[in-house]
Amino acid sequence: MNTIASRPVDAVIAAIRDLIGERLSTAQAIREQHSRGEDQTPPTLPDAVAYVETTEEVSRILALCNQHGVPVVAFGAGTSLEGHVNPVRRGISLDLSRMTNILEVNAEDMDCLIEPGVTRQQLNDYLRDQGMFFPVDPGSVCTIGGMCATRASGTAAVRYGTIRENVLGLEVVLADGRVINTGGRARKASNGYDLTRLFIGSEGTLGVITRVRLRLHGIPEAISAAVCQFPDLKSAVETTIATMQAGIPVARIELLDADQMQACIRYSKLEGYRPTPTLFLEFHGSPAAVTEQAETVEAIATELGGEGFAWATDAEARNRLWKARHDAYWAAVALIPGWRGITTDVCVPISKLAEAILGAKEDAEAAGATTCIVGHVGDGNFHQVILFDPNDPQGHEKAWEIDRKIVARGLALGGTCSGEHGVGLGKREFLEVEHGPEALDLMRGIKASFDPKGILNPGKLFRN
Amino acid sequence: MNTIASRPVDAVIAAIRDLIGERLSTAQAIREQHSRGEDQTPPTLPDAVAYVETTEEVSRILALCNQHGVPVVAFGAGTSLEGHVNPVRRGISLDLSRMTNILEVNAEDMDCLIEPGVTRQQLNDYLRDQGMFFPVDPGSVCTIGGMCATRASGTAAVRYGTIRENVLGLEVVLADGRVINTGGRARKASNGYDLTRLFIGSEGTLGVITRVRLRLHGIPEAISAAVCQFPDLKSAVETTIATMQAGIPVARIELLDADQMQACIRYSKLEGYRPTPTLFLEFHGSPAAVTEQAETVEAIATELGGEGFAWATDAEARNRLWKARHDAYWAAVALIPGWRGITTDVCVPISKLAEAILGAKEDAEAAGATTCIVGHVGDGNFHQVILFDPNDPQGHEKAWEIDRKIVARGLALGGTCSGEHGVGLGKREFLEVEHGPEALDLMRGIKASFDPKGILNPGKLFRN
Repeated sequence: MNTIASRPVDAVIAAIRDLIGERLSTAQAIREQHSRGEDQTPPTLPDAVAYVETTEEVSRILALCNQHGVPVVAFGAGTSLEGHVNPVRRGISLDLSRMTNILEVNAEDMDCLIEPGVTRQQLNDYLRDQGMFFPVDPGSVCTIGGMCATRASGTAAVRYGTIRENVLGLEVVLADGRVINTGGRARKASNGYDLTRLFIGSEGTLGVITRVRLRLHGIPEAISAAVCQFPDLKSAVETTIATMQAGIPVARIELLDADQMQACIRYSKLEGYRPTPTLFLEFHGSPAAVTEQAETVEAIATELGGEGFAWATDAEARNRLWKARHDAYWAAVALIPGWRGITTDVCVPISKLAEAILGAKEDAEAAGATTCIVGHVGDGNFHQVILFDPNDPQGHEKAWEIDRKIVARGLALGGTCSGEHGVGLGKREFLEVEHGPEALDLMRGIKASFDPKGILNPGKLFRN
Repeated sequence: MNTIASRPVDAVIAAIRDLIGERLSTAQAIREQHSRGEDQTPPTLPDAVAYVETTEEVSRILALCNQHGVPVVAFGAGTSLEGHVNPVRRGISLDLSRMTNILEVNAEDMDCLIEPGVTRQQLNDYLRDQGMFFPVDPGSVCTIGGMCATRASGTAAVRYGTIRENVLGLEVVLADGRVINTGGRARKASNGYDLTRLFIGSEGTLGVITRVRLRLHGIPEAISAAVCQFPDLKSAVETTIATMQAGIPVARIELLDADQMQACIRYSKLEGYRPTPTLFLEFHGSPAAVTEQAETVEAIATELGGEGFAWATDAEARNRLWKARHDAYWAAVALIPGWRGITTDVCVPISKLAEAILGAKEDAEAAGATTCIVGHVGDGNFHQVILFDPNDPQGHEKAWEIDRKIVARGLALGGTCSGEHGVGLGKREFLEVEHGPEALDLMRGIKASFDPKGILNPGKLFRN
């Protein structure tokens, strides 16, 4: 008798191998790739990785895992920053990255039906010829299934909304293997509890998303980007507030603080800019509307201390600019060779943004830390990359201490611990403070009702 | 011994009277006012009506009702069209219409905190001086609490979204009297299950909403309305599709069919229009943007057979037009004196709208019924008022038969039985067809978890 062979997970692995053959892997290298995301959590190896290709496979694997009480962690591109894909209680890492079919595109209705492993870049490449695009843009190369699971947003949410506003419905496999559809193709509905919104942001703890029906948008006739630099953070934030209040439908409005600008100038070879607080903007619309929007924002910025607009109307200059913005995290981490970074994700009412950001910088400076800030300021959301020395045994914990202070201030200002990255492992401690025990009880009740055996991404969202 | 006095509800009524004094009413006339909404369901008198004024009162009343297993039905303006406020199992009608405080307005963040009895008209009157407005406009004089509970939308949802997209957070009293807050003031969040969206559209079955934090919008610099008439429904719908695909941010785009136009011309004294399919449009933005949008739509409409644009740029002409649109239901019912109407609420993908509407008209004509159609066509949502003779014992049931056919076609076309009115009593039979038994099981699981004794608006959403 081999006692190891009697573990429930071994029976499950054998059954999955019967089902999908060599797409079930227990190889060390594969398990290491699925041991965490782009986060800094201590990696955990899953017992096996299952590369699934169909809803039917997902359904049968979940039924098996549920029967044997084996944990299942859905895995897409592995870009989570909060430990979502770290299989802390081992079990099966369910890799959905091969489910990349674009099943329907309906030009008249501007919607599409896709599998969860499709990335937003793949989808937008596919759609371009049809004059449509999917606007939710977190910057990284992530899967749309993962974006749904974490309620992602990014730079264009200020105009187009987050993933929450851009999903019409989901196909979801429940813990016991049953398959449901949460929505039809209607643009809106008042037809019972909003299961779609409940699964969006549920971080793999309520079900596994196997199909997504998305809203699409027409590619704007004209796109123009601009950069405006400011003498201080306050004037940059005030320009943002005034722009939002004026109802100008900016497509993107991103803040980089002085340290982040310095990092980007160095990392992305951005020439002609100074290391001062800076707004990156983008405008979408008809040529006339874009010009009008940009001129209005320029006038607001100038009045509030902005030091001139630099334009980027051609696609190449624009792409260079947004590439620099999307590489901001790597630019920040590159400031000190060999160091790593953790990222905050506080989102506050926009009127509190200057206070939240200035306070966050003070916290970091008081602790002697190097930090950079980028922010989706139209939404009041900012990320502070806190650098730490991985060779310092206390380094990670010191960075966490700063993070905790920044979150506490964000909550005190009426904000949330997470605008878009999700809770995962790293923010569980904040959830009770933010929602209170009664609301958390409701969430636990939903979890218990949907996943009574607790097999779906256990250890995430809730601490116990 | 009086056996009636031993009913649980009598103990509850006595305790509520101790709590709120004469604001607890058992008067026949008051109970009749709370026996149904603007629907055609057979009225049910609640045992008593409690006019509450604070969250604390709601909390204590729910705790009492929960302890004694007495049903509670939240009541706002009583404008429900689906029997939501009909207390089919009697108990307490909890009237929130006196909770009308506007607690906060934050101009910088464009949000506000209000009590649930505030109507959208009251809120917009209050906000006007500050250059902001709340855009969700179902037409009727309804409370914002009721709009949240039914996931309301209306004419401006095509641009500004439904109530779902315009609520930041809710204060909710749970079945046992505990009070939770579902959201802070951040514009977006990825911080656990989306309880806000779960309560929105829950029709009073999961909790009672006692405060609402809303997103506000800047009053546009320019507003312009237009009317365009068409030779047939198809060309009107095609104009709508082309407008949406072109990405023109129309603020409203409403279809009235020939019968509805005839009714409106008669009822609202609309002069200069013919009884043919018609689009009512509104444009918001800068003066230049509004002109550009309108000219683009006019060009599209002309190419597709539209017969000239009539403009209404001054506020008075615009208000007359939208008043006529909002009175469309009454105009329809007035077509046959003494008759009544029931209203469908199907919402389909926009590409299926012509098929859904033309089919719906055929169903009605085959049954010899008089019907009028108005539609929030930018969203694919339309209402067909089906007239019936209340003195004909089979009249109501015949109208229902037509309704069922229209819903069945809508579902077959990928749509939903309800775009915005909700399920209530009238659409329960469609819910299982639309979602399937597994999804409905999940909803029942949520209900059981939130309201284990089933005191909150029992008999709604689910048939058993």
